[in-house]
Amino acid sequence: MELFYSRDIALGSSTLDRQESNHCVKVLRHRCGDTIHVIDGCGNLYECVIVDDNPNATLYDIKSVTEGYGSHSYWLHMAVAPPKNIDRFEWFCEKATETGVDEITPLVGDYSERKVFKGERCERIIVSAAKQSHKGAVPQLHGLTGVADFIKQGFGPDTAKYICYCDDVEALGGTKIHIREALKQAGVSRFAVMIGPEGDFSRNEIALALEHGWQVISLGDSRLRIETAALTAVAAVYLAS
Amino acid sequence: MELFYSRDIALGSSTLDRQESNHCVKVLRHRCGDTIHVIDGCGNLYECVIVDDNPNATLYDIKSVTEGYGSHSYWLHMAVAPPKNIDRFEWFCEKATETGVDEITPLVGDYSERKVFKGERCERIIVSAAKQSHKGAVPQLHGLTGVADFIKQGFGPDTAKYICYCDDVEALGGTKIHIREALKQAGVSRFAVMIGPEGDFSRNEIALALEHGWQVISLGDSRLRIETAALTAVAAVYLAS
Repeated sequence: MELFYSRDIALGSSTLDRQESNHCVKVLRHRCGDTIHVIDGCGNLYECVIVDDNPNATLYDIKSVTEGYGSHSYWLHMAVAPPKNIDRFEWFCEKATETGVDEITPLVGDYSERKVFKGERCERIIVSAAKQSHKGAVPQLHGLTGVADFIKQGFGPDTAKYICYCDDVEALGGTKIHIREALKQAGVSRFAVMIGPEGDFSRNEIALALEHGWQVISLGDSRLRIETAALTAVAAVYLAS
Repeated sequence: MELFYSRDIALGSSTLDRQESNHCVKVLRHRCGDTIHVIDGCGNLYECVIVDDNPNATLYDIKSVTEGYGSHSYWLHMAVAPPKNIDRFEWFCEKATETGVDEITPLVGDYSERKVFKGERCERIIVSAAKQSHKGAVPQLHGLTGVADFIKQGFGPDTAKYICYCDDVEALGGTKIHIREALKQAGVSRFAVMIGPEGDFSRNEIALALEHGWQVISLGDSRLRIETAALTAVAAVYLAS
């Protein structure tokens, strides 16, 4: 079953945009009377029937709605410093969407080599991954955000906040635990996880995170690339839920 | 610290092959007297000193050996049906090596669309991922193997055998459990995991697996691509160990 995406369907729109219309009518050769399935990116799946197979603006009637389509039982916000090779970050966005993530924030920190980030390609990859993996909700991609700003933003007491760090934190007055143990102890279903750049977070950033109630975590002994570490954290939350 | 790879160093060889020599002398400009680090792919890291900076056959003296360099606490054999797009399988090989895997077998099953597999590129990717992630052991890549043959091969009682399947197995007289529960119950540190093609395993293949003592497992509710499912299984074993 092929899914189409219309951000505005929940707002009453009953047409596919130019690109989706073209794919629906020109590529998949759907015609008037055909049933198609449309996600709104907010979690809903709409069963629709085409009433005008216009290849530039396909018009449909909504027959039924399924809420929470392909949803997961947790909320996860991944904040990740994009590596130099942006393909690796795009790959993370695709895989995290398939597995189950709600928000993604690219980070820029003290040791970041990449200080600019253009989200257009990532957004397209995320939408197509959500359609491919049959999820009604499309993860929200935020703009490039400073590590300190992300650390300071409030998530509320019902969100467990984890920051991955390779070095010891005892000297900074903190403790580091394996993400497996952190998830066992969490007792919540909302998570924010920060993954630093290749040079990791700075000691100042970790100190600030400790001040703001972030739990320093480890992902085990393997030396993982940024995007692999980030997806491992997503898998840990997904598998534990 | 950059690692070099010499499969023969454990056999007494004290030269890098042409490609590694070129990288060592031409690219990294190492010279006589420089210390370099060489892995043998079997788990050992050798600290060596260059005695002849020949760009085609760099000669070195071994100063010390570290065993079990970058090793993990489990043994994992991943048998995965490569998808049509071979890049996705190569990506799995890279990420699984980083995370921690010991053997990889490409599978061909009843519903496989890909029935040929050339391993050369994958082997190069695995070696470079092992070097990049600082592992002395290079995972072994086997040739394309039939699902039935892989199911029938004996792994011994100390190995937990898991086969991922999307459909129900009650009709086949089996039970399906989440990989998280399977790992909790395993009581062993050796694992073999089978991931099928896009069309999944056939009912005959699952029936055969049940006959041969494989536990049918689920990776959760998300609709994962082959390579994402395979890496999620690797992450589950890695995170639980």
